[in-house]
Amino acid sequence: MKFSSKVKKCGLSPMRKFHPYAVAAREAGKRIYHLNIGQPDIETPPQYFEAVRNFRLPVLAYAESPGMPVLIDAILEYYGKHGMRFTRDQILITTGGSEALQIVFNCILDDGDEIIIPEPFYPNYNTMVNTCGAVIRPIPTSPEDGYFYADRARIESAINGRTRAIMCTNPGNPTGNVLTPEEMRMIVDIAREHDLFLIGDEAYREFVYEENEPLHSMGEFEDAAENVVIIDTVSKRFSACGARIGCIISRNTELIGEALKYCQARLAVATLDQVASAALYSVGPEYFAAVREEYRRRRDTVVSRLKEIPGVVCECPRGAFYLMAALPVDNADNFQKWLLTDFDDGGDTVMFAPGGPFYATPGKGVNEIRIAYVLRQKDLERAMDLLAKGIEAYNRL
Amino acid sequence: MKFSSKVKKCGLSPMRKFHPYAVAAREAGKRIYHLNIGQPDIETPPQYFEAVRNFRLPVLAYAESPGMPVLIDAILEYYGKHGMRFTRDQILITTGGSEALQIVFNCILDDGDEIIIPEPFYPNYNTMVNTCGAVIRPIPTSPEDGYFYADRARIESAINGRTRAIMCTNPGNPTGNVLTPEEMRMIVDIAREHDLFLIGDEAYREFVYEENEPLHSMGEFEDAAENVVIIDTVSKRFSACGARIGCIISRNTELIGEALKYCQARLAVATLDQVASAALYSVGPEYFAAVREEYRRRRDTVVSRLKEIPGVVCECPRGAFYLMAALPVDNADNFQKWLLTDFDDGGDTVMFAPGGPFYATPGKGVNEIRIAYVLRQKDLERAMDLLAKGIEAYNRL
Repeated sequence: MKFSSKVKKCGLSPMRKFHPYAVAAREAGKRIYHLNIGQPDIETPPQYFEAVRNFRLPVLAYAESPGMPVLIDAILEYYGKHGMRFTRDQILITTGGSEALQIVFNCILDDGDEIIIPEPFYPNYNTMVNTCGAVIRPIPTSPEDGYFYADRARIESAINGRTRAIMCTNPGNPTGNVLTPEEMRMIVDIAREHDLFLIGDEAYREFVYEENEPLHSMGEFEDAAENVVIIDTVSKRFSACGARIGCIISRNTELIGEALKYCQARLAVATLDQVASAALYSVGPEYFAAVREEYRRRRDTVVSRLKEIPGVVCECPRGAFYLMAALPVDNADNFQKWLLTDFDDGGDTVMFAPGGPFYATPGKGVNEIRIAYVLRQKDLERAMDLLAKGIEAYNRL
Repeated sequence: MKFSSKVKKCGLSPMRKFHPYAVAAREAGKRIYHLNIGQPDIETPPQYFEAVRNFRLPVLAYAESPGMPVLIDAILEYYGKHGMRFTRDQILITTGGSEALQIVFNCILDDGDEIIIPEPFYPNYNTMVNTCGAVIRPIPTSPEDGYFYADRARIESAINGRTRAIMCTNPGNPTGNVLTPEEMRMIVDIAREHDLFLIGDEAYREFVYEENEPLHSMGEFEDAAENVVIIDTVSKRFSACGARIGCIISRNTELIGEALKYCQARLAVATLDQVASAALYSVGPEYFAAVREEYRRRRDTVVSRLKEIPGVVCECPRGAFYLMAALPVDNADNFQKWLLTDFDDGGDTVMFAPGGPFYATPGKGVNEIRIAYVLRQKDLERAMDLLAKGIEAYNRL
């Protein structure tokens, strides 16, 4: 049986690569502290479950293909509060931010096309872009430079005749980088000058940790109406990853028209999850402030503990709930495997995501890791302890 | 801005084409009887909503990428009751049957590849296949022949070097055709002999109306383990279209492995909908018997009323809740538009789905329509009245 050449280019999730070793470690009685996945432990606001319990229609029918008006209006109001005006026909509800990304890629990427993405980047972009027959052209960065990529010359040198889009994950996964308004303006200008789509994956928009720092979005740049596409989701914003509710927002009516073809072909997004996600948008600013404060504390813990480990290179991330760090080990893959098979401290060990799969450039990220700081303070401190002890023991081998 | 050549080949849903005319007709005070969409009016079993109300975890977290064990086990048990043994690693939960189809197509279809599908077929297959850069090679049928396609010579003549799969929607949408076990065996044999995937879209499996007729599935053919892929969904089975829960089932472990790449890239299917869909599988056989009886009555009403209209060609469908009919009109598109803009009977008019978009062969289906018999008996009778009166008035013009 023959399979598509496109799926053959894709791999299984690098996050799951160490799963068998983790299972074996647990079976051997070890306790594993998970810094490897971005599943927040914050409680989902009760508004979600109340809305679900109050659903009272006898038939769970298909929702409208572009999304349910109750959710569309809730999202438009949220954007309005952040100073961005969008209309109902500029938004399509999707099954998570993942489907939003896949649909946008399907609309704009053809065989042989390129999309510019700063590396390290979220590894699932690979499968989504490969499916379209396109490739990711990375903007190179380095840990010593804090994974900085917002440089006009560096971005423009990645543009060629097959370039269709620039994508910024902002705040960044895995780096936690946050673009300044000036950097955003500059990237918007590049997209306009080169007639490129500018995709803002803004799943982590609320997770910005500077005191009183306003949240920013590519959607603010109304002069780039044709270029800007926003990918959004309730997953991290409301700790509702399992709702699978996202959206595509753009003032480019042609793009929305093309994307609607895919929305109609897959009929609809889950009805109850849309109704309940609309209710999530009724939470007040105190919710975001509390969550932000919690993550800021966690970030500070992780960064201060990392700085104490000799040879670790990392910058303090300004947003999201990840950070990348270069470790003083030969190979983060080997180190992770060893942590699961050969290491423990009082029966405990730790998992992170090795850095290689976050890069398109072969050989990069070999000694880097991504840490998701999604654990409670006490567990996070213990996890960082284990990392420090693990590095020391591994390098004594 | 440039868009993908693949999305440009796709169209908006033909089911929505007459939506603006319907809106105008309603605004003009007309009542429209909808035979154009496959949204059942049967109540969703209360087990769904009970499960949702009883969900008690504080964090709505990502489910497992291949699907939640509680739902996988419920589906495996259901198949077991129908005499088919599958294991947990032979099933992937998807966001509706739509995502199941898209993932399977992505796995097996490359640019320039072909998939054989009897026409008329569900028009959304077009967008799903076009996205892969592949094309649908139709098996031609005719209304006079009851849309019969299960003919070895006819199927084999559609096979060439680029053929990757044969797909049977069984029971059929839009025709309501049901393959006999002998016909299924013959198609399975063709797939085996030519080393092709055989995709059974079995969304309507329970909707078969012969007295005591056992339900069949391509999954029964264990000797075609490498070939057979089943697409399944709770949408029609439990009148839970808005749950968006489907699945891919196959004994071809390589296919499941490739499909898992896509499942991981889009992370997970909605958590609550999986939990609640698992509960749906606890309904007893009396549920299916009652629903089947209700649809059988509706089918008989539609068919007997159609037979009374001079010049209509249609066979009594054996399954699903659709039928195709050739009308004594020049053009079903023009006729539908006229029904909305120029016709009414006591303020009432009727909508169906014109047949053209159900065909890949240009020019076919021009005078055909698809009727979805998803209305209550009384409304269905009135709708058929309107169709008869409409045809008469239209042909007097």
